[in-house]
Amino acid sequence: MQDTLITICDFIGTLAFAISGIRLASSKHFDLFGAYVVGVTTAIGGGTLRDLMLGQTPFWMTNSFYLICSGIALVWVMLFRKQLVRQNNTWFLFDTIGLALFTVTGIEKTLQAGFPFWTAIIMGCMTGAGGGVLRDILRGEVPLIFRKEVYAMACVLGGAAWWLTAAFGAPYPVAPSLCAGVVIAVRLLAVRYKLRLPVLKGEE
Amino acid sequence: MQDTLITICDFIGTLAFAISGIRLASSKHFDLFGAYVVGVTTAIGGGTLRDLMLGQTPFWMTNSFYLICSGIALVWVMLFRKQLVRQNNTWFLFDTIGLALFTVTGIEKTLQAGFPFWTAIIMGCMTGAGGGVLRDILRGEVPLIFRKEVYAMACVLGGAAWWLTAAFGAPYPVAPSLCAGVVIAVRLLAVRYKLRLPVLKGEE
Amino acid sequence: MQDTLITICDFIGTLAFAISGIRLASSKHFDLFGAYVVGVTTAIGGGTLRDLMLGQTPFWMTNSFYLICSGIALVWVMLFRKQLVRQNNTWFLFDTIGLALFTVTGIEKTLQAGFPFWTAIIMGCMTGAGGGVLRDILRGEVPLIFRKEVYAMACVLGGAAWWLTAAFGAPYPVAPSLCAGVVIAVRLLAVRYKLRLPVLKGEE
Repeated sequence: MQDTLITICDFIGTLAFAISGIRLASSKHFDLFGAYVVGVTTAIGGGTLRDLMLGQTPFWMTNSFYLICSGIALVWVMLFRKQLVRQNNTWFLFDTIGLALFTVTGIEKTLQAGFPFWTAIIMGCMTGAGGGVLRDILRGEVPLIFRKEVYAMACVLGGAAWWLTAAFGAPYPVAPSLCAGVVIAVRLLAVRYKLRLPVLKGEE
Repeated sequence: MQDTLITICDFIGTLAFAISGIRLASSKHFDLFGAYVVGVTTAIGGGTLRDLMLGQTPFWMTNSFYLICSGIALVWVMLFRKQLVRQNNTWFLFDTIGLALFTVTGIEKTLQAGFPFWTAIIMGCMTGAGGGVLRDILRGEVPLIFRKEVYAMACVLGGAAWWLTAAFGAPYPVAPSLCAGVVIAVRLLAVRYKLRLPVLKGEE
Repeated sequence: MQDTLITICDFIGTLAFAISGIRLASSKHFDLFGAYVVGVTTAIGGGTLRDLMLGQTPFWMTNSFYLICSGIALVWVMLFRKQLVRQNNTWFLFDTIGLALFTVTGIEKTLQAGFPFWTAIIMGCMTGAGGGVLRDILRGEVPLIFRKEVYAMACVLGGAAWWLTAAFGAPYPVAPSLCAGVVIAVRLLAVRYKLRLPVLKGEE
């Protein structure tokens, strides 16, 4: 039951991440191969960085689920190109669900590998937001999340919520659920109220 | 005998990859050090990504052959700068031989590490085409192979040929030879007939 | 005593590297999160690449020292933004000390892992100069050290000095000290006399 829910969220999140990459690739006139690579990278890039740093085999190399999801995303963008704009709110929601799940996965895997909690939060943040950074680098753009959106900070706050909850001795499924909830809430509130982090002033 | 042939192809391919990186670096006014780094990255970058993902030591760290080849490439570009344009067809052919060999190496190494065939094809493709992507990122350009050329798709088709041949029980040297042949044929035909993958339409 | 000196240099160098990343991020209007990530990447990126290639856990994942230093760097830039230009000479010196120490660390770690000396020099160079390359990629710029400055070459020359000294059988602390001295001397002389590597001529 819980496993089914996680699989569904994983599918939804991977699809949404890949679609964001493919749409942004299409605005740069990438061909089908390039668009697929950017989509896959957006979906699995963060988890790949995490696994390499944890000294583990990247998760997608033994499970074709993620590459197939990205293929579905490519077909979706090709078929429903014109409807995508109208579906923006749905995809935003799916992307947020993915962000929350990927953060939780990243934190859990890092804790299980025996690292301290602050390392786990960084890895959760990297799992959630790293794919988007690689996507923008492949597109030749400055990473969006460094300038415009409260995105990675939602992962950090979710991770902090997990840490606090665990410190107070909450039983297992409470802490990761709260973490996911905080990620989603922060992201929704930030977009709703146009919240941004302050921009660092330059020295001119 | 077979080993000698592979070493020659490895030398030719590494040289051609490094020269492509160094030439493109020179068009951005890189200094000698920068040009060498871009050349080396083009030559060994794909295999390095593969080895990191396979959890192995990057191949060039225990064998100075590849760094020396890249050094020869740098000297070549400095000495024969004006002749390079006339040698374009030769270098294109050498680059294609390298692409085929690197694809075969990547697939073989991944299969030997016990991964499924679809993972091996991805790794073959990454070994062949990954260096060019890193080269373009270091030059601050959108990767060429995402937009203009049938390059990585040749690796994918070569890998598929290997897979099919192996599934029909062909004895060992047949499958990788066919794979190399398909990579070379697809690449030559694509350039000869100006074949391209369709560009993904944007949402204007 | 020697350990204290190394810790102080590590602090100074990390601070200087992070500040260089944060200042360059601020010129691109990054928000506080983005600026911190670029600062951290500048400080730890080179060593992370090295550790991944050596098959080891990235050094900062088990020691919060480096992330805290980068946090101090962020606060410093926010508080003393206007004084930073006047402090340029100091930060240049600190950056050079960091470059020397990181080069030594990289060479030492690689030799201890059993690699040949030429690999160690490359890893020393990557430890010292790799963070700056990643910093520029994250900012969407062509890496500065490929075009303008004698930076990575100072690491290479320092590594060569270590190699020579060790080959003549000098006792342990001599070779790394000389290496650090050469890195600092080359960097200072290059800036003082505006030395540059020749630019590779393009094919127009």
